[in-house]
Amino acid sequence: MQTDDRYKILFEPVQIGPKVAPNRFYQVPHCTGMGTTMPQSTAKFREVKAEGGWGVINTEICMVHPTADSYPFSIENIWDDSDLPGMRLMVDAVHRQKALAGVELGHGGSVSHNRMSRERPISAMPRFVNNLPSMVRQATREDLKEIRDYHRAAARRARDIGFDIIYVYASHAIGLAYDLLSPKMNQMRRDEYGGEFVNRVRFLRELLEDTKQEVGDDCAVAIRFGTDELVGADGFTCTDDGRRVVETLGEMPDLWDVNVNDCDFDMMTARFTDEGFQEPFTAFVKQVTTKPVVGVGRYTSPDRMVSLIRKGHLDMIGAARPSIADPFLPNKIRENRIEDIRECVGCNICLMTKNAGGPIRCTQNPTVGEEWRRGWHPEKFPRKRSEKKFLVIGGGPSGLETAVTLGKRGYEVTLFEGDKELGGRSLRESRLPGLSSYRRVADYRIGQLHKLPNVTTYLGNPVSAEDLEGHDFDHIVVADGAKWMDDGIGRFNRTAIPRTADARVYTPDDVMAGVSITGNVIVYDEESYIMGGVIAEALKLAGAEVTLVTSDSDVSNMLRFTGEKSMVYRRLSDLGVKMVTHHIVTSITAGQAQLTQLHTHAAQDVAADAVVVVGMRKPGSALFDAISQRAEVLAGKVGVTQVGDAWSPGTMAEAVYSGHKFAREFDMPKREGVGFRRERLVVHSLEDLDAMEDFH
Amino acid sequence: MQTDDRYKILFEPVQIGPKVAPNRFYQVPHCTGMGTTMPQSTAKFREVKAEGGWGVINTEICMVHPTADSYPFSIENIWDDSDLPGMRLMVDAVHRQKALAGVELGHGGSVSHNRMSRERPISAMPRFVNNLPSMVRQATREDLKEIRDYHRAAARRARDIGFDIIYVYASHAIGLAYDLLSPKMNQMRRDEYGGEFVNRVRFLRELLEDTKQEVGDDCAVAIRFGTDELVGADGFTCTDDGRRVVETLGEMPDLWDVNVNDCDFDMMTARFTDEGFQEPFTAFVKQVTTKPVVGVGRYTSPDRMVSLIRKGHLDMIGAARPSIADPFLPNKIRENRIEDIRECVGCNICLMTKNAGGPIRCTQNPTVGEEWRRGWHPEKFPRKRSEKKFLVIGGGPSGLETAVTLGKRGYEVTLFEGDKELGGRSLRESRLPGLSSYRRVADYRIGQLHKLPNVTTYLGNPVSAEDLEGHDFDHIVVADGAKWMDDGIGRFNRTAIPRTADARVYTPDDVMAGVSITGNVIVYDEESYIMGGVIAEALKLAGAEVTLVTSDSDVSNMLRFTGEKSMVYRRLSDLGVKMVTHHIVTSITAGQAQLTQLHTHAAQDVAADAVVVVGMRKPGSALFDAISQRAEVLAGKVGVTQVGDAWSPGTMAEAVYSGHKFAREFDMPKREGVGFRRERLVVHSLEDLDAMEDFH
Repeated sequence: MQTDDRYKILFEPVQIGPKVAPNRFYQVPHCTGMGTTMPQSTAKFREVKAEGGWGVINTEICMVHPTADSYPFSIENIWDDSDLPGMRLMVDAVHRQKALAGVELGHGGSVSHNRMSRERPISAMPRFVNNLPSMVRQATREDLKEIRDYHRAAARRARDIGFDIIYVYASHAIGLAYDLLSPKMNQMRRDEYGGEFVNRVRFLRELLEDTKQEVGDDCAVAIRFGTDELVGADGFTCTDDGRRVVETLGEMPDLWDVNVNDCDFDMMTARFTDEGFQEPFTAFVKQVTTKPVVGVGRYTSPDRMVSLIRKGHLDMIGAARPSIADPFLPNKIRENRIEDIRECVGCNICLMTKNAGGPIRCTQNPTVGEEWRRGWHPEKFPRKRSEKKFLVIGGGPSGLETAVTLGKRGYEVTLFEGDKELGGRSLRESRLPGLSSYRRVADYRIGQLHKLPNVTTYLGNPVSAEDLEGHDFDHIVVADGAKWMDDGIGRFNRTAIPRTADARVYTPDDVMAGVSITGNVIVYDEESYIMGGVIAEALKLAGAEVTLVTSDSDVSNMLRFTGEKSMVYRRLSDLGVKMVTHHIVTSITAGQAQLTQLHTHAAQDVAADAVVVVGMRKPGSALFDAISQRAEVLAGKVGVTQVGDAWSPGTMAEAVYSGHKFAREFDMPKREGVGFRRERLVVHSLEDLDAMEDFH
Repeated sequence: MQTDDRYKILFEPVQIGPKVAPNRFYQVPHCTGMGTTMPQSTAKFREVKAEGGWGVINTEICMVHPTADSYPFSIENIWDDSDLPGMRLMVDAVHRQKALAGVELGHGGSVSHNRMSRERPISAMPRFVNNLPSMVRQATREDLKEIRDYHRAAARRARDIGFDIIYVYASHAIGLAYDLLSPKMNQMRRDEYGGEFVNRVRFLRELLEDTKQEVGDDCAVAIRFGTDELVGADGFTCTDDGRRVVETLGEMPDLWDVNVNDCDFDMMTARFTDEGFQEPFTAFVKQVTTKPVVGVGRYTSPDRMVSLIRKGHLDMIGAARPSIADPFLPNKIRENRIEDIRECVGCNICLMTKNAGGPIRCTQNPTVGEEWRRGWHPEKFPRKRSEKKFLVIGGGPSGLETAVTLGKRGYEVTLFEGDKELGGRSLRESRLPGLSSYRRVADYRIGQLHKLPNVTTYLGNPVSAEDLEGHDFDHIVVADGAKWMDDGIGRFNRTAIPRTADARVYTPDDVMAGVSITGNVIVYDEESYIMGGVIAEALKLAGAEVTLVTSDSDVSNMLRFTGEKSMVYRRLSDLGVKMVTHHIVTSITAGQAQLTQLHTHAAQDVAADAVVVVGMRKPGSALFDAISQRAEVLAGKVGVTQVGDAWSPGTMAEAVYSGHKFAREFDMPKREGVGFRRERLVVHSLEDLDAMEDFH
């Protein structure tokens, strides 16, 4: 289809120094959890985005020196020539899709651990190394000189393997250039890198000058800069030093890629920020420089994108998460298939999986990271290999994904949903405070279903095993989800909480169903993820006096991986929710609960008109078991499979993946070995090792 | 030298099934943080131990199935043939040193994350996945059948690449066999794997039978078993099900490798357990089986080892940590060089570095993990390459290590120590409760110094830059350590604590110097490591009323990596130390301190006659700076280097490494690139990737 005239501006080429980007869609540098340790996976992941229309594709942060070593958390390194083959593969893959390839060079500074290199992290001044009982060393002038030399060498290497855009990085409160710039991080230096602004910006300026000098004729030189620390007077803001940086270095780089510090802010979830919340902090940049400006804001709407360009706020639409959720977002706009866009939920499962130490995963896009490993493409599906007819029971995330994927493969599918609306948990949870974007999981899939004539949907249609009598399905997929349990067993508490018959005990299912829960309410979180805090928020907003009790060391402790932990504390604290950590609920009676300290076992009684238990979830095995006992199933004439939470409760991303994997692999030939390709290490022979020996 | 007659029993061969171990020194399976991701490093690390006399060398746990995936935490995998090359390298390396090679096959069960494989973890019953908001799936019979098949295949593969000993693993509260065995972990199964003992032990028995059947003619089959859960009636003990396992399976394996559950207990630090604390739990095993029995206990004394064998407790002396601290422990006993043994400190820096996600490090042995990477050998040193004369200032861990290593290389070294005794912080800290083993860091090195005629030591000799007048040192190494600071800046608190002039504020240096601190004392921990808890303990034992305040989410939070966190809570709680988490000390006056909640900013005043601040440490740059300004240094005639905490404060392991690295690399030719070899990935060409494509 023709591109809508309104959106044609998005497909104009953009000059960036000596290079030309084919359009305004710009995949900013972002982590993948794959980087250095998964070069094949990374190359194909990035290539698919270039194929989907992103005009510029960047690496993740790429460290220039062994004092900036993130092992075992995989990012990119470019310490010496031996690091190049993996990155060259990515460049070649991106280039053949006609996109530009950029590399974000940087140095981790104080956030490095250097577990592999055994170097001591360096920064503007001494501080603690995160998660290590050791101190960051104050970088000497000689250190800074050496880092500059390595940065120059990295730029040359990057150019030599074909990168079009070479970055200097000073954003997200990460890295040596940021450390030196921030008055918060650079407090005690007496040399030419400390004190007044001109000194604090010196290293950043030098890196830019060095890079321009080394590769400026061949490559575009970009700067990535966070204009504001978002901590008011405790850091710099976009009206003082943040603005001053742009004023000072304005015309030096060929492109400004701007956002905010720190990374937890810039990459905040939809629960805590709106799309484009960075705009007030970056709007000034184009007033100060003539160079093209890129900015992010979790943008998925082409109208919003056009508006940002028309009003002179941005030249290119930066994206990390939207390009993960939908690698084909630009092509879909170009082809006027707006309704096919798989919009980012803003749930930060990507950040969580990466921060916990693995490849990124995505709630909306189950193919992320599987492009090479399993040969999965987000928009292309293997044709059906039989004429089998499917019944999918349950229209939540996994059931919808199963039906859509089977449908795209060409199978005939019937989808039964017991409720009057499709969506399952994504819909239920979307009604909780801050989680409205969760319904995008359903929205995208419902939109796709409507385009698939071979999928028939029946709503308000709860199914029992007997109802299947007379139908001629060849395979039944049970996706009837899970129920929250109220026994209180969970992460730290291993025994059911004793309770009296008159105790009022609820679960998140009750809250989502609209049950009124008032008075003094304890929300007891044994899950340590999103739900505990959100339920507390919902009940407090509804008028209850809420105490959030968790056996974990922190409220919503797992949200340290999504960057939300401190935001949860702030929101609940602002709302007046009381918070108690390290405690187990050890009994519940009418009007009272006993809390016991996890370590000291000290017990206290607290007033509690009701307790909402956020614990484990029970997968829905009853229907599956009943169907499994039917004659046609036992005879092997009809297959039956569980997917999603019905199979094993987990994140929404896992539910979608579960349905997708089943549907994509159905009837396909089995792969050898473990079912996916693995990145492998070079293993030398013992003789080779001997030849390397230099026990002196 | 001749082996002492008393110790000859340790060097008797031991029959293990069809194999013969050359002696009784048995390196039990232990993690390295290298495993699958660092095959070259692993092979040389293990080979050096075989060279040092360990008669049996095992891998770490080696997972048999992709539902047991530990990525990015590196252990071994043996999922299919593509996993074999790295392991074969280790086998070959061990064999050429005449030791037996063993492999610990297992399945992670409920402790797996499966971040790479995307499989759902499985266990005896549903529970939460550690650090993920997802649930472990209850293993079906089909799952268990599949795991058995994979386990069999792994055993065959292991035999085919030359392993002598094949393990079945059910220990440390880790893994599917353990999960099914434990009545705590296996509560709700109704099938033949749940309920009574005979059912719970079934899977373990089947794995043993399968392994015997597959490889029993060619290889020894070992079982690793934790006899007691050490939680009393909450788990099994060595008098009920723990004993019953040995009674039931007694003669089935060729070797019993016994210890206790969980791993935090079995691998507990010297602070919380004595050497051989496992003995009461494992002594019964040899009464029940005729097969050889291996046990661990952090043993470093040959007399203790002999006693364990003579009294019929063990047949072989198992070791993980002692073999890391001194890979040549057996040879040193054989050669009657007992005083050369580098005894394990029991500090668990090895466990900490591995648990945090990197290769293991060791306080006593700085060459661990560097055997291939840097070509470092724990007992062989490059000869000096010049006649340079060294002055080492400071006889703490790094100064001692520098002097010893330079001395072993043949250089002439003078060591000045300001105190009357050598040892520095290792000595000072060893006087704190539970840390007496820290003096082993000094003891070993002092013993070595005595054997080096080219190293001269002067005690009670504080040095200033002027004192160097008239000396003819070519290189001066400054190792004068660091001082604890009292400003309260640390991990979460970024500003100096306001205080009145009459406020009593101390540091750990004061406590270690014996300053009397009484009354209501706040120990304010901004470091989150060992010192805060130990200082609280010391002051409480000395009679103060102690409150331990930390801004972190847990007391001694970093000790979650050493397995000690819960022990610290228990000990301080038993002593009556009050504990407050999530609070910053925001002011100190005479008799009072203000505490402010980190997240809610709620403030409270508490009585405090004194505050001991455990914060950052200031490296000792004054002497280094003064020496650097001397004419002969400025003229380049005399070199000067800082090492250890004087250079940048860190762990004792880092201080030792810093001195070792300087001394070993001095005058040596520079390596290319980053100075150490790196494990590299296979990178295919884009064409190769295309050839693999199967976007269906």
